[in-house]
Amino acid sequence: MTSGPPNTKRGEAPSGEERIIESAFAPLVQGWPGAYDLLDDCATIEPAPGQELVVKTDPVRAGVHFFPDDKPDDIAWKALAVNVSDLAAKGARPLAYLLAISFPEKPAAEWLAGFAGGLSAAQDAFGMNLVGGDTDRADGPMTIAVTVMGEVPVGRMVRRGAARAGDLLFVSGALGEAALGLLVRSGDAAVRTWGLDDAAMDTLRERYLRPQPRLGLKAALRNYASAAMDLSDGLAKDLGRMCRASGTGAEIEIDKVPRSDAMRKALAADQTLVQALVAAGDDYEILAAVPPENADHFVASAAAGGVNVCHIGHVTPGPDVRFATATGDSIAIERSGYDHF
Amino acid sequence: MTSGPPNTKRGEAPSGEERIIESAFAPLVQGWPGAYDLLDDCATIEPAPGQELVVKTDPVRAGVHFFPDDKPDDIAWKALAVNVSDLAAKGARPLAYLLAISFPEKPAAEWLAGFAGGLSAAQDAFGMNLVGGDTDRADGPMTIAVTVMGEVPVGRMVRRGAARAGDLLFVSGALGEAALGLLVRSGDAAVRTWGLDDAAMDTLRERYLRPQPRLGLKAALRNYASAAMDLSDGLAKDLGRMCRASGTGAEIEIDKVPRSDAMRKALAADQTLVQALVAAGDDYEILAAVPPENADHFVASAAAGGVNVCHIGHVTPGPDVRFATATGDSIAIERSGYDHF
Repeated sequence: MTSGPPNTKRGEAPSGEERIIESAFAPLVQGWPGAYDLLDDCATIEPAPGQELVVKTDPVRAGVHFFPDDKPDDIAWKALAVNVSDLAAKGARPLAYLLAISFPEKPAAEWLAGFAGGLSAAQDAFGMNLVGGDTDRADGPMTIAVTVMGEVPVGRMVRRGAARAGDLLFVSGALGEAALGLLVRSGDAAVRTWGLDDAAMDTLRERYLRPQPRLGLKAALRNYASAAMDLSDGLAKDLGRMCRASGTGAEIEIDKVPRSDAMRKALAADQTLVQALVAAGDDYEILAAVPPENADHFVASAAAGGVNVCHIGHVTPGPDVRFATATGDSIAIERSGYDHF
Repeated sequence: MTSGPPNTKRGEAPSGEERIIESAFAPLVQGWPGAYDLLDDCATIEPAPGQELVVKTDPVRAGVHFFPDDKPDDIAWKALAVNVSDLAAKGARPLAYLLAISFPEKPAAEWLAGFAGGLSAAQDAFGMNLVGGDTDRADGPMTIAVTVMGEVPVGRMVRRGAARAGDLLFVSGALGEAALGLLVRSGDAAVRTWGLDDAAMDTLRERYLRPQPRLGLKAALRNYASAAMDLSDGLAKDLGRMCRASGTGAEIEIDKVPRSDAMRKALAADQTLVQALVAAGDDYEILAAVPPENADHFVASAAAGGVNVCHIGHVTPGPDVRFATATGDSIAIERSGYDHF
């Protein structure tokens, strides 16, 4: 397959938009016949027998979700990863994505090449293909609207709103690292008080710039969780959403919330960073509600998928969502994640 | 089904974004269980047995694709219709759509209600459901990114790039009316020279504001066309794209390009409006390449679907795309549609 006949003179000469698509994006659809080399108006997707599609769109924007001067390959990775993270939380296998970008001005060839490289690395890591999209120019910040499509066995998508009182709550990985990474990325002076070496700082920055969707949790979630969602706006806010959708409450034991070595050091220097641990965005870890009788299987299946999960609390009849110390005292969570309005 | 428990106190209070989703958009997902009342992170879509999904995203933006002060129901209609038009051209049946909107400021409740009303009318007219989306706030013009999903029998999507030399070229409806409607909408002084009454002006304005996807062509396209695409950027440019993708050329007999009574009057007053006829955007009619032996069936099947189609030319080995008079003289087309770069 080719990316079309850009060097022939058949028909009309390609437009600026078409040249961008041919040079940067057409290589990313190789291997997906239903993308028609990006030369058609639509793409086709056929779920495997017994599977249905899981779809999601979550645009990212310069100045809100990434810095305009972030490296283009990091921007591309994040734009795709934050959407794939939702598929991971639903127990879905990624298949394909659409990409609609608006640029405030015509992008430089070098920037585009970097962006396409980041997309290529991300789609390879997540096992999916670009299948279509759109580019245009508009005033305002660059916006990258990705729509992801994955598949699950029919009726098996892991729901947000199906947690039940008594379920144990688990999260993957360690929380708050992206929030620390954002402070590192921003050059915040407080970072120097944490006593981290350069490698640790680089790791935090990477956690902010390159979220890793927890696709290894697919089997554990499908087989053992009653509900799950990814953590994009902070544990406190996202757990609140799970509880609202489920008609439940929850109680979290704050000391059990998993923290990395870097987070431990940062917390030792500044206890207010507990807010970064439970109320800051960009973690892209998975929150799962698991019936107690499934808990051991869930942990083992997650480990088999290469993902560490921690038990942090349980679902209650509600309505409150409480964060408590080991002695049972409630902790006030001052921020509740990012809200656009 | 309900749009969630906004009046209960379970879990966290809903955010501004969640209130917008609940009030305006949740009613639009009624009837689609896989939208989970917009309370989940993803939606599910299961094509019928033997069908595959056809997907497309084409964002629209204030100041480019619509006027910021267009009525919100017209803006909503157009945002969905321009995407559904692509499904129509592919012979696909609309199923579902995702909606990602960015607002420069928090929208007024009245505006949102009008917008939701326009979406409701459009999705009912097109036979589809909202299934998910995202709202956020960003500087710059309002942007509405719709991703549409339809279905076709597996392998039967009508391609853009499968036209063959010798095929006859057809278009639906009459071209250039949206371009005239844009001049009406803009208050262009030239409009008064066309000698149209108010009803005719209203019709043109409506053609610009409320494109009508030609879903009635589904059977004709699937059964009798070798290639098709919708006309969003003008016949000249879009035909060039079809020819590039197909490795062909084309010859159009300009006098055969269908024009409405209003267009005839406008052309009588100003012959340069032939550019509006063949090189202006927003028609959202369908261009189809049809093997000669299928032509009668194609016309009859289109008529059975309520759509008039006109034979305007034929596909050539190429490479040129020519517009010619009845006597064979070439006509230069000065503009070649809108290009963002």
